[in-house]
Amino acid sequence: MKIKIGIFGYGNIAKGVEQAVLKNDDMALVAIFTRRNPSEIHTISNAPVYSTNNLIDFIDKIDVMIMCGGSATDLPIQTPAVVKLFNIVDSYDNHSQIPEYYNKINEIAVANNHTAMISIGWDPGIFSIMRTLFGSILPDGATYTFWGKGVSQGHSDAIRRIDGVSDAKQYTIPKEDALEAVRSGNNPELTTRMKHLRECYVVAKAGANQDKITDTIVTMPAYFADYDTIVHYISQEELDRNHNGIPHGGKVIRSGETSNTTKTLLEFGLALDSNPEFTSSVLVAYARACFRMFTNKTYGAQTVVDVPLKYLSSKSNCDIRRELI
Amino acid sequence: MKIKIGIFGYGNIAKGVEQAVLKNDDMALVAIFTRRNPSEIHTISNAPVYSTNNLIDFIDKIDVMIMCGGSATDLPIQTPAVVKLFNIVDSYDNHSQIPEYYNKINEIAVANNHTAMISIGWDPGIFSIMRTLFGSILPDGATYTFWGKGVSQGHSDAIRRIDGVSDAKQYTIPKEDALEAVRSGNNPELTTRMKHLRECYVVAKAGANQDKITDTIVTMPAYFADYDTIVHYISQEELDRNHNGIPHGGKVIRSGETSNTTKTLLEFGLALDSNPEFTSSVLVAYARACFRMFTNKTYGAQTVVDVPLKYLSSKSNCDIRRELI
Repeated sequence: MKIKIGIFGYGNIAKGVEQAVLKNDDMALVAIFTRRNPSEIHTISNAPVYSTNNLIDFIDKIDVMIMCGGSATDLPIQTPAVVKLFNIVDSYDNHSQIPEYYNKINEIAVANNHTAMISIGWDPGIFSIMRTLFGSILPDGATYTFWGKGVSQGHSDAIRRIDGVSDAKQYTIPKEDALEAVRSGNNPELTTRMKHLRECYVVAKAGANQDKITDTIVTMPAYFADYDTIVHYISQEELDRNHNGIPHGGKVIRSGETSNTTKTLLEFGLALDSNPEFTSSVLVAYARACFRMFTNKTYGAQTVVDVPLKYLSSKSNCDIRRELI
Repeated sequence: MKIKIGIFGYGNIAKGVEQAVLKNDDMALVAIFTRRNPSEIHTISNAPVYSTNNLIDFIDKIDVMIMCGGSATDLPIQTPAVVKLFNIVDSYDNHSQIPEYYNKINEIAVANNHTAMISIGWDPGIFSIMRTLFGSILPDGATYTFWGKGVSQGHSDAIRRIDGVSDAKQYTIPKEDALEAVRSGNNPELTTRMKHLRECYVVAKAGANQDKITDTIVTMPAYFADYDTIVHYISQEELDRNHNGIPHGGKVIRSGETSNTTKTLLEFGLALDSNPEFTSSVLVAYARACFRMFTNKTYGAQTVVDVPLKYLSSKSNCDIRRELI
């Protein structure tokens, strides 16, 4: 009996979920729901597409709905509505709002006897696991999170909005000397500028003033002003050829002492050719956990730290003990 | 109200537990139990020491007993006996026997309404978490575990038993080209010899035949014959000066694909100045989880994959969501 998966929304994350479900033999993709005209959607796996107006017809046909909208405007509206009807997994990633979001979703999920896995992905998500685990097993220490090398969609968009820019891609890059300082075990205080570098590949419109564009970028508050920023001007052709991926990555490092002189370093890192596809893979593993916790009547909102890791695995508990412990 | 901790046995792991408890404000070390004469034990923290014959007097005074004996002969006898009286955490690390050990401890723990965290440490333990998590979120891939650079006590002991050897220390070292092959994402097949190197520092007795010792080491079945082994002869003074620590470390790496052409690399690594002290720190964090699961009436044997990570943290669930997710 496979776990019956639904997908809500059909963007990059949804396409990743569609592919990830194919890699998990114990799951079946039942339907994709869209606010657009379903006949206009062409899916990778030929999964059937329905209008979100038809959600109610699937209440007994879907075990877990994976919410694939964005955190800025989609999920804060969609997840509270959909969790009334289904168990859900979402990737809500607005860190500062997570406590409030958790409380809101928890209340609705509990009231409807549903299980809601929120803020699933890699940060929040896998990185949250590492921060919690590392801090718990090494209480006397400091934790550092680095992002990259990878494309920041928000920063790329910010550059594209500048006058005279026709296209752009921005990479966030951890600074090697900051990583080394952390790994040395000295628990350095690191400013924003010391941790990450921002490297921008910009296509300027014909006749645009590149010096002025560069100045606008490197002085842009919040986005670039607090960072060392490198700007390259390249052709649209080169941007399309060499910068068309959405790679990302990052590291969580904790350095501390087990006794007064004894140093310990814990480091987790990931390197992703496709940022959205990896987020999708994590969502799908947590859909399995969602279904199992629902089956155990563990209702309400759950984050990654609420989930016993055995629930993520397609292996039996016996096989986990024999093969993975 | 602090979590009341007991320590069973007083070797290296116990001394690490004693220090780790001091780093966790929500715990108090109540007593250390020894099979030796308690008056002969001098503890780091001046914690009171009792004979194991007095265990029964502490049934209402200790929340979790941390078992600090060895896996070869101590824990298989001590844990089944002690779990009748207390919640326990142990570091049973005989991988092939874990399923059988789990079943045995589970039965006794359930019958006595106790919670037993077994096989806690870094491998089994934290590495088991990584293998389970990585395999679940990236099902199409391969997982590799590397150990070192670090001292192998068993291999050091094996060298010391050779005729003509007065002292020795053996380091297990992951081979850099094997790590690089794994990180390249090609999922290589790696033999034992390809993954790890063994480096030995040997103090020979006066007049001993070093060539014969070297030959005995490098051809020793199970321990060295399947590895590239390097043997150095040094003085006792140099061994004591440069090789007196018990560092260790290791890596769990999973490489795989999220869609057909899209590579993902997940890597966890640790580097420890003191192998036993880190194991102890993990045991203490899981003592907190043990107490919480006992409080929730989750009885029976538990491994790292059965434990929601929030139970490891001294922070409240709200604070975890606000600070760590």
